[in-house]
Amino acid sequence: MKFNSLDQNHLKNLQAMVARDRFSTGDSVLDLHAKDQSQHPARRPEAVAWPVDRSEVAAILRYANAHRIPITGWGSGSSLEGNPIPVQKGIVLDFSQMNRILNIRAEDFQADVEPGVIYQDLNEKLRHTGLFFPPDPGARATVGGMIANNASGTRTVYYGSTKDYVLRLEVVLANGEIIELGTRAAKTSSGYDLIHLMVGSEGTLGVVVGATLRLVGFPVEYSAAIATFPSVAAASKAVFEIIRSGLNPAALELLGPECIELMNREEQLGLNVSPTLFVEFHSSTAGHLVEILDMGREICNEQGCTEFRSGLGKAERDHIFKARHALGEMIIRTHPDCGTLVVDVAVPNTAYPEMIALIGEEMNATGIMGYTFGHAGDGNVHFNIPGKKGDEKQWAQIDKLVQRLVSKALDLGGTATGEHGVGLGKKKYMTAEHGKSLDWMKQIKALFDPNGILNPGKIFP
Amino acid sequence: MKFNSLDQNHLKNLQAMVARDRFSTGDSVLDLHAKDQSQHPARRPEAVAWPVDRSEVAAILRYANAHRIPITGWGSGSSLEGNPIPVQKGIVLDFSQMNRILNIRAEDFQADVEPGVIYQDLNEKLRHTGLFFPPDPGARATVGGMIANNASGTRTVYYGSTKDYVLRLEVVLANGEIIELGTRAAKTSSGYDLIHLMVGSEGTLGVVVGATLRLVGFPVEYSAAIATFPSVAAASKAVFEIIRSGLNPAALELLGPECIELMNREEQLGLNVSPTLFVEFHSSTAGHLVEILDMGREICNEQGCTEFRSGLGKAERDHIFKARHALGEMIIRTHPDCGTLVVDVAVPNTAYPEMIALIGEEMNATGIMGYTFGHAGDGNVHFNIPGKKGDEKQWAQIDKLVQRLVSKALDLGGTATGEHGVGLGKKKYMTAEHGKSLDWMKQIKALFDPNGILNPGKIFP
Repeated sequence: MKFNSLDQNHLKNLQAMVARDRFSTGDSVLDLHAKDQSQHPARRPEAVAWPVDRSEVAAILRYANAHRIPITGWGSGSSLEGNPIPVQKGIVLDFSQMNRILNIRAEDFQADVEPGVIYQDLNEKLRHTGLFFPPDPGARATVGGMIANNASGTRTVYYGSTKDYVLRLEVVLANGEIIELGTRAAKTSSGYDLIHLMVGSEGTLGVVVGATLRLVGFPVEYSAAIATFPSVAAASKAVFEIIRSGLNPAALELLGPECIELMNREEQLGLNVSPTLFVEFHSSTAGHLVEILDMGREICNEQGCTEFRSGLGKAERDHIFKARHALGEMIIRTHPDCGTLVVDVAVPNTAYPEMIALIGEEMNATGIMGYTFGHAGDGNVHFNIPGKKGDEKQWAQIDKLVQRLVSKALDLGGTATGEHGVGLGKKKYMTAEHGKSLDWMKQIKALFDPNGILNPGKIFP
Repeated sequence: MKFNSLDQNHLKNLQAMVARDRFSTGDSVLDLHAKDQSQHPARRPEAVAWPVDRSEVAAILRYANAHRIPITGWGSGSSLEGNPIPVQKGIVLDFSQMNRILNIRAEDFQADVEPGVIYQDLNEKLRHTGLFFPPDPGARATVGGMIANNASGTRTVYYGSTKDYVLRLEVVLANGEIIELGTRAAKTSSGYDLIHLMVGSEGTLGVVVGATLRLVGFPVEYSAAIATFPSVAAASKAVFEIIRSGLNPAALELLGPECIELMNREEQLGLNVSPTLFVEFHSSTAGHLVEILDMGREICNEQGCTEFRSGLGKAERDHIFKARHALGEMIIRTHPDCGTLVVDVAVPNTAYPEMIALIGEEMNATGIMGYTFGHAGDGNVHFNIPGKKGDEKQWAQIDKLVQRLVSKALDLGGTATGEHGVGLGKKKYMTAEHGKSLDWMKQIKALFDPNGILNPGKIFP
């Protein structure tokens, strides 16, 4: 695909499509839209626009499509795989001014939102209704970004991913056409499911300008526990057993001792520096919760758990999950001269202990150090590896190690990316993961975006 | 699209692709594959093949694509909207000999199956594992048919539809290419979600030859209740309140008095002939269940419930749900000289009472009689209308009434089909429901099946 740069004429025309103060080519603005939270190199767009409604988005896309100008959507820049880095330059559409919660229909368990809404703000607004939007990637992510990446998080083991919460979408296609997908009914068997095609497509098939989200009732009762283990192997075996038991935890997070150490230091958690599981259960009655927690304790003890601390109060639980959500950033801060490569594989439950064991073996064999954690209940493994910026030899070693881990995950029936999306960093694994179906993904891309203007350079190797 | 008939040469070539006793052009075989359970007219295919593996399916599709011969998949013929009727003739692929359960990986909560597996047989086989595959359309449906229609049923209000339980698919495309989609990991953000594109596409984009299904733990405790109301309006209001309460019923079925009368007669249920709700709750502890049932009773009583009978034993509960599942067939048997048109709209929870009220008004205004029931917890309304075969005047009236009901459902934000699929009968509503996005569905169809050989004449108006 050949793209055109923005000349003065383009800039004049594009600027006229939004208000003057919502279009910028200023250096600081371009810098702020040049990279996400990943280690991928920054790349500045040529201009940033802040649309306020779908007709502005449609006008810009129509123009960009006619003139072969790349368009990359921008939520809050919190993604972890370079997903919104405008590697082919062009225009970044920043959705921070399309951040209205349009309608909360509590009795239908639904909310209509614009793509720039931060999901925590939505949940804050929903608080008085007793409902919430469960996916929780942690960072202050926008709903639009979460839809683009099919984001998930600590609660996904129980509540599912973003894809499970999108009932309707308004999408602007590459040609500027606006389509509306889905229904407000709780279920449908009507025609092809284009919503799920859009969710997780990382802005390469269309630009989401509105969504109806499904909400669920906030659990009446919830309780968290911290389980400490003598080894990561024992902790990962306990994960397997908890999932196998059908206890349905609402969160089941694994943390290596190096992660606990960091979280203790930065958030004063005061936890034992050992491999640890954070477990949370939700229920509608307190009695039920006590029973589940007891069963969870028993399973952990069978795997050699050295301490199982349940009955955490709300403040302590919130503190722990806040620290857990901040862990990625803590790792980056701790290694200021490093970039951090983030492994995001997910494997079937039975393969989880093996996957975790391989990480340990690789660290021993290569001397490369990383942080092991993840949404263990989903089989999702994160392994964050700090590598010295500019040290090409080290990065080549890290890259090879990660390739071995991803290959193993695929061999075990898993996926190269459980929740961060393909972006830039996981492109090279797509052929191995998808085989011939990748060609069909490419053909769908060509159908929806024949000029390839939408977030070019992502997903496809 | 122009299709070719099967000449002697085609028949000889196709027969050679499967064993002789698995290819037939016999009259009785063609008759058995000419209609489903709907009122749509029978149409015989020209031949039926029973493939035993995906390479046979691929060979037949490759040939059919080259020679423009229609291909229609066939599970058990239990669908309700003409979905597998070979209206353009050609070949029916009957999957009853691809009915192996290949692998139950209980510790991963997964099963690998061939498309001809009957879902009740799968659940029987799973019994000793404590797991089950939740979607339950009722009839002895095949997994392949359920995937084609995104089938759901009485448990969907709690457990979701078929789409929520498909992790991997093997699909033969129109050109004979075999693609494998998805992952065995519990979640993924890797590339476009082609699985959800295939699920619910009614065999028009590809032919499913294998699936990995997600399973869930069977509830340790469950309990059903029967609530009787003085009016359908009161019962539908109670549905709204139960859903709004967040009690999360595992089944919430509405039955008009005419349905109860029929079920009493055919299954000796001995229920009050009044508008009725069947409610079921699942939990992991008995104490929890008692609390939920009490709250459910309270809500029903507030809506004027005249009797709330809980504590039903397993035998009685199974009997009731067996009768509920057989209701569609009872209606057909009760009106032997009639065809039965089945309304399958679904609307948001808040709109449910209004939708139900409209059906009553329509019956009063037109004198047309029907049976009102449905998976009320999903907002799914069934209204089965028997119409005299051959009475064109009556059918024209029925058709107009149904058009008014579907239009109302769409106006309320709902869908023309909650679970039966579009097939033949709901095609005419697709433009109203999907607007411009229908054109994109058509383009996806043209991409995957440029010659239009896969289940032609379905979904698109």
